[in-house]
Amino acid sequence: MNFTYANSAQIFFGQGQIASVATAIDADAKVLVIYGGGSIKKNGVYDQVKEALSGHKWIEFSGVEPNPTVETLDKAVALAKSENVDFILAVGGGSVIDGSKYVAAAALYAGEGWDILERKYQVEKAIPIGAILTLPATGSETNMGAVVTKSATQTKLSFLSPAVLPRFAVLDPDVMKTLPERQLVNGLVDAWVHICEQYLTSPQGAMVQDGYAEALLKNLLVLAADFDNRDNDSWRANLMWTANQALNGLIGSGVSQDWSTHMIGHELTAMFGVDHARSLAIIQPSLMRNQIKYKKAKLEQMAVNVFGLSEGEDLSEACIQAIEAFYNGLDVQTSFADYEGTKDEAVDAVIAKLQGNGMLVIGENQSIDIATSRAIVAQAFA
Amino acid sequence: MNFTYANSAQIFFGQGQIASVATAIDADAKVLVIYGGGSIKKNGVYDQVKEALSGHKWIEFSGVEPNPTVETLDKAVALAKSENVDFILAVGGGSVIDGSKYVAAAALYAGEGWDILERKYQVEKAIPIGAILTLPATGSETNMGAVVTKSATQTKLSFLSPAVLPRFAVLDPDVMKTLPERQLVNGLVDAWVHICEQYLTSPQGAMVQDGYAEALLKNLLVLAADFDNRDNDSWRANLMWTANQALNGLIGSGVSQDWSTHMIGHELTAMFGVDHARSLAIIQPSLMRNQIKYKKAKLEQMAVNVFGLSEGEDLSEACIQAIEAFYNGLDVQTSFADYEGTKDEAVDAVIAKLQGNGMLVIGENQSIDIATSRAIVAQAFA
Repeated sequence: MNFTYANSAQIFFGQGQIASVATAIDADAKVLVIYGGGSIKKNGVYDQVKEALSGHKWIEFSGVEPNPTVETLDKAVALAKSENVDFILAVGGGSVIDGSKYVAAAALYAGEGWDILERKYQVEKAIPIGAILTLPATGSETNMGAVVTKSATQTKLSFLSPAVLPRFAVLDPDVMKTLPERQLVNGLVDAWVHICEQYLTSPQGAMVQDGYAEALLKNLLVLAADFDNRDNDSWRANLMWTANQALNGLIGSGVSQDWSTHMIGHELTAMFGVDHARSLAIIQPSLMRNQIKYKKAKLEQMAVNVFGLSEGEDLSEACIQAIEAFYNGLDVQTSFADYEGTKDEAVDAVIAKLQGNGMLVIGENQSIDIATSRAIVAQAFA
Repeated sequence: MNFTYANSAQIFFGQGQIASVATAIDADAKVLVIYGGGSIKKNGVYDQVKEALSGHKWIEFSGVEPNPTVETLDKAVALAKSENVDFILAVGGGSVIDGSKYVAAAALYAGEGWDILERKYQVEKAIPIGAILTLPATGSETNMGAVVTKSATQTKLSFLSPAVLPRFAVLDPDVMKTLPERQLVNGLVDAWVHICEQYLTSPQGAMVQDGYAEALLKNLLVLAADFDNRDNDSWRANLMWTANQALNGLIGSGVSQDWSTHMIGHELTAMFGVDHARSLAIIQPSLMRNQIKYKKAKLEQMAVNVFGLSEGEDLSEACIQAIEAFYNGLDVQTSFADYEGTKDEAVDAVIAKLQGNGMLVIGENQSIDIATSRAIVAQAFA
């Protein structure tokens, strides 16, 4: 299994590290600061950014929403173009960072930005980006992927390009102090599924990748069990670093990756507004059971190495149940009922959307066709 | 525990990846290829390098010895200077790569190269380096450290600089096919101790770093137990990737690091010609027992998480014995008798050398003074 791997992002980890931005961005760069709904103005992060950028010329764009929309982001693209910015500083969680990646790429592209998501244009250049993470979950701060939604058509798509890998990422666990419990839970679940998408594939004997993935999954189990201590510095630091490692390219190097849970989950978010992490918890158990033929061996390995289950009669099913228990223990549901109309209508609508987005065959073995997706969604819907 | 982390090295992993060098080095760069005793001419690596560099101007320097000496390397420095080379391609194991780092730095320094090792000059620039790894062990291919020996005084010292981090590293497990068994064993042991130097310190609750370290240690246990299958592609690939991860900066980020076993071990290599890895196996158990006050908690954690030992009466001593069993199982000795004269004379000589090199107080707690080092060495010598 050949692979190439590089991740040049500079990490600034720890309390007070937002100040590092002062020297991490070229002194003569004109900076566009992009953020979300304004929570950074309440928790002190905005003031720290302002202080760090006091030697720079900078402007700002706020209002990037969760599951950022191209409609909003294109306003930032126009601003980046008209102001000729040299650097984009994303201050937020995965949505703000993903959105900033889109802005950085679209600002150097003459056509319609949405072409990037429809893969009509492969991003080769982008305005350099830095990220100040405020919500550990997606790993977007040191990876080259982004997910963007077109609100008009409820279409949620992704793109990848080395050009949008942040030059640096500030991971200061103190920014988590004011996060709502729901977002911490989402972070645990999102990181968990990111690891699973790269780990729960056919066994390939990649001992480093498997061992790292198992170590990260065990961290998340410990942090979830220790959720009452979420106000401790070490709890915060461990979640922040674990969620980063869950999707920075390392554990997925040289091994098959799945991502079908994400592809189906994205539709639940786009159509019903389900939190990204929670859409994954709804789909994953059903998908695992449906694809048990391909997943069995690795689920058995996970049962032993992650959950500490002994050899037993049906270890793979025991593992799926342990995954469900992990979600349910965090009050995250593993089935979905919050749709209008009948279950059949809701399933049909999701499948029509998946089909419309071209997700006709998905999964690491290309074994999930539309009929299979329908069975997976039907099983996951109450 | 704040930290900064970056590792920009591009990894080309897998069979046939030596060909990647063709495009990884700028087409107009004049390349100095540095290698060792000529094994690469017998195992086909040299021919692959030649083929990959067919579009480049390049010259070569061979004869870098194990534990590379400044006396040899300074000849390469003179060549790099006189030929105005733009890029250095190290083709070999840790000794060749470490030596190439020294050459890359010394070639851009007007003073005596040895100043770098004596810390009279902090390296800030170096000729860019790439590495083709032929012996998995030291991790030098993607880190910024190097160890160089002055033969005239039997002095073995190290330096660190981001400027000598290789731009890329080729990890093709096929190059291991012709390695002598002794070097594979050394690779297992060297990687093992590298991990321990970053892991067997006071517990700091760094779950990612600990979990990754434990995963890598377990890999090495499995590979050692499976040593009969060392001719399998997957065995080779797993050792190569594990040894790389053991010392690329990741598991040591934000945690205390020890390295006292290395500092004492270096003297055994410099004075008695003991293989680097084997010098570590001689010193480490004695050092762990001597420093049990500081090491106990983490040894207990290692006993449980790496060796799968249950809670018991003296888990830390059980862990040290398990480490000794790992070495002995590979026919690596954990005490040393191959000195001339009496044991007291030999110990005195090692301690005098350590003192002469300024290693007066070592270890992550600065708890190993010269008297303590003497006790550690005396305990390790038969």
